[in-house]
Amino acid sequence: MGRVFIVGAGPGDPELITLKGLRLIETADAIVYDRLVPQALLSRARPQALLVYVGKKPGGQGPSQQEINEMLYNLALKYDVVVRLHGGDPLVFGRGFEECEYLASRGIRCEFVPGVTSGLAAPAKHYIPPVARGTASSVALVTGREDPSKGRRQVDFKRLAAAVDTIVIYMGAASAREIAAELMEGGLPPDTPVAVIESAFFEDERFRATTLGGLDAVRNPAVIVVGRTVERGLRLREALCR
Amino acid sequence: MGRVFIVGAGPGDPELITLKGLRLIETADAIVYDRLVPQALLSRARPQALLVYVGKKPGGQGPSQQEINEMLYNLALKYDVVVRLHGGDPLVFGRGFEECEYLASRGIRCEFVPGVTSGLAAPAKHYIPPVARGTASSVALVTGREDPSKGRRQVDFKRLAAAVDTIVIYMGAASAREIAAELMEGGLPPDTPVAVIESAFFEDERFRATTLGGLDAVRNPAVIVVGRTVERGLRLREALCR
Repeated sequence: MGRVFIVGAGPGDPELITLKGLRLIETADAIVYDRLVPQALLSRARPQALLVYVGKKPGGQGPSQQEINEMLYNLALKYDVVVRLHGGDPLVFGRGFEECEYLASRGIRCEFVPGVTSGLAAPAKHYIPPVARGTASSVALVTGREDPSKGRRQVDFKRLAAAVDTIVIYMGAASAREIAAELMEGGLPPDTPVAVIESAFFEDERFRATTLGGLDAVRNPAVIVVGRTVERGLRLREALCR
Repeated sequence: MGRVFIVGAGPGDPELITLKGLRLIETADAIVYDRLVPQALLSRARPQALLVYVGKKPGGQGPSQQEINEMLYNLALKYDVVVRLHGGDPLVFGRGFEECEYLASRGIRCEFVPGVTSGLAAPAKHYIPPVARGTASSVALVTGREDPSKGRRQVDFKRLAAAVDTIVIYMGAASAREIAAELMEGGLPPDTPVAVIESAFFEDERFRATTLGGLDAVRNPAVIVVGRTVERGLRLREALCR
């Protein structure tokens, strides 16, 4: 019986995977991978390795999570080293945890190999820090998605507004304006600085600075950073990108 | 004039640095490094590279931040590639941002190279997820340190208790019990599950599970995770570590 490694591929730059993640890709018998995993990493797999794409588009096509779980189980019965490759970190708004729960329940050993999460790496590329001494001591990583079973957002943005200095929103494109409205209801002023990084580390990457009140349409995949630390990052960015 | 790369070494396992981080270590003319950077990474530097240790002990010995900033500036005048190597990620409760601000103000180019942060990697090693579908949709990364200029904690733990699902506390050893008390005042029940990982990825690593009400002395460096997701992680951990 094989072992499943639930691996973070990092934020999209193939050089931002960990050494351990790359080693596992290079030794895997089978790799099950997502949409945001860079092709350059898959090309490091052994020629005889089985590569299975299970990415879902925002519309929802692609195998269900249950199908992915069962696929991982069946691969672990057949192969020694199975790699489940997630974009970013497998536990930060990926489904890596549920996959491991399922595998464990069926007697399969698994292990998490962390990756650099896009919510921190994408802003860092543009000199935006999540926290910064004197400006921000806390950062929340949150999902902008709604809970499908409840029909409302999973995160209480009104409370969040008053509780942390910086808010990093994953998968918030579809509801960016509603989230901004909730954060303002929660007390953040409309001129609170916001950075939006779309398709970070990919060819069509787009960075822009705006404010909570001025936030307009955001394209997936996106990282949205809200807080005063954004302003300080923008000053640094200007000094360096001149 | 050289360039300064402000690099995250990752959480302590030498295999958890990024490929880019390692490449920069291997090509650097000078490396300025912290206490929690693994020796195995420094041994990858070129034989002629200058290695400068600037780690501070909890007591406060070691060069001041201003001294480190000036050292980086002087090294950048002299060398082409200067690496400033931080444990974890340089922007998550490191001083990487201030270093880059200082360098930019003196006309030196710098760049951030992210690392896997210990606040996410240390729990993941023990199967504790920061978020998990159905249990937690938000995680706050916060510092447990006090603001030396204000003599009080920088983070409002009472508000935090009601605003996010999971709280990951960095550098919280000295004030763990006070923080737990504030979180309970903020509404978290005393039986809220807590995971403590001390010296993650180092030889004297110690993992334990407790509750907010039962939290006792914590040894630095430590990551403290508070929230219901800890319980779910512990169940998975038990299933896998049997």
